[in-house]
Amino acid sequence: MIDIQSLVREALHIYTSFSYEIPKKPIDMTKSALAATVESTLLRPDAELSDFTHLCHMAIQYGFYAVCVPSSMIPLAKDILNDHPTKIVSVAGFPCGNPHTEIKAKEAKLAIELGAHEIDVVIHLGYLKSKQYEFALKDIQTVVDIAGEKPVKVILETGILNKAEKIAACIIAKEAGARFIKTSTGFNGPGATVEDVALLSYVVGRSMGVKASGGIRSFSEALKMIQAGAARIGTSSGEAMILG
Amino acid sequence: MIDIQSLVREALHIYTSFSYEIPKKPIDMTKSALAATVESTLLRPDAELSDFTHLCHMAIQYGFYAVCVPSSMIPLAKDILNDHPTKIVSVAGFPCGNPHTEIKAKEAKLAIELGAHEIDVVIHLGYLKSKQYEFALKDIQTVVDIAGEKPVKVILETGILNKAEKIAACIIAKEAGARFIKTSTGFNGPGATVEDVALLSYVVGRSMGVKASGGIRSFSEALKMIQAGAARIGTSSGEAMILG
Repeated sequence: MIDIQSLVREALHIYTSFSYEIPKKPIDMTKSALAATVESTLLRPDAELSDFTHLCHMAIQYGFYAVCVPSSMIPLAKDILNDHPTKIVSVAGFPCGNPHTEIKAKEAKLAIELGAHEIDVVIHLGYLKSKQYEFALKDIQTVVDIAGEKPVKVILETGILNKAEKIAACIIAKEAGARFIKTSTGFNGPGATVEDVALLSYVVGRSMGVKASGGIRSFSEALKMIQAGAARIGTSSGEAMILG
Repeated sequence: MIDIQSLVREALHIYTSFSYEIPKKPIDMTKSALAATVESTLLRPDAELSDFTHLCHMAIQYGFYAVCVPSSMIPLAKDILNDHPTKIVSVAGFPCGNPHTEIKAKEAKLAIELGAHEIDVVIHLGYLKSKQYEFALKDIQTVVDIAGEKPVKVILETGILNKAEKIAACIIAKEAGARFIKTSTGFNGPGATVEDVALLSYVVGRSMGVKASGGIRSFSEALKMIQAGAARIGTSSGEAMILG
């Protein structure tokens, strides 16, 4: 059995001194190359059915990697994206992370059955902040296990975590077998910063990807996130990002 | 089968002209009488285990009607409240209302199995705003059915609904067999207003209760909500409300 407390302690020792300096020279990337990293996201509770329809059509048009929608909207997305390569990402325990593990796992399972290709699950921030790393690990591991071959991203909510909590969460997600670390839900506190993306990317290393999300609204902001180590961009401003 | 579209149309005809004038003379109520209507709430994603423990002990001390906690924290609450009359309220599909119906129902079922006495479920705002009343009704009805004898409250999120949407939501909740209408989650947009409490109370009539929630932080604010028709007060400031 993994001694997650020791792993976190060790990681804090190694990574706490990390700092990131934003490079003076921005990276060069075409809009269509960026689009291929974008998960075009619509999770607002008041989004109407027509908004989801529009989201899916725009994802096809601009060549976004995926749409990210709540589990109730997967059937609608699947109907539209049917023959297209655009993937469907859905969420579990979103945006608070505090439903019971069994519910987060069931939501992941149902989402996959309905057609989701990837699952973004919010870490249990209460367990994380209470340093109950075993509980936080078991929670995520249960979701990863039930997702099987489908990649799971662990959402940290970096805007309301301190540096030690961010590092601990990365170690937990990695040990749980998740494939990505994701910065934010966009619902609780500030979203992604380039410093956080760089930190997360450094801690999880090359075996996992980082998804930058929360408050990313322009092409230039997205490029900074990619430069800092993000492999995916989660945004509810996908269209504006490409047109702007 | 219920023709929910017609019922909503009829209700809009009857209730749209309703307006509420705040009475000049406030009601008289003791703090302990108010406490007996309070659902002391802790749903913040970053709340630590010690915060939940404190919530439960204070609920016992002040004689609150209930604590309201996420499903992952019901076992902890149950352990502490064990021999006391304080009830446990939990949530389903919180705070966005857009998980798949099956997940909202499973969360309600699990919460009850774990010891919850009442379930607060968020209405599917996307269906409501898209005027897909059949879908919104079926979603809530499924949760009410699975909850059996346990009362279900339907959370509307009044702060991001127009008057017609609030009225429609009341009719849907009533037809679904819910026992309460609840104004807000406290997460999306503004919380309860006395005008909304009065409107909801008027539309659902005497067969259902109204729970005012979201941003209610003082004893005097709570009294205004009771005066406007609220039978329950949901607040994350229960302690301050009684001590203040």
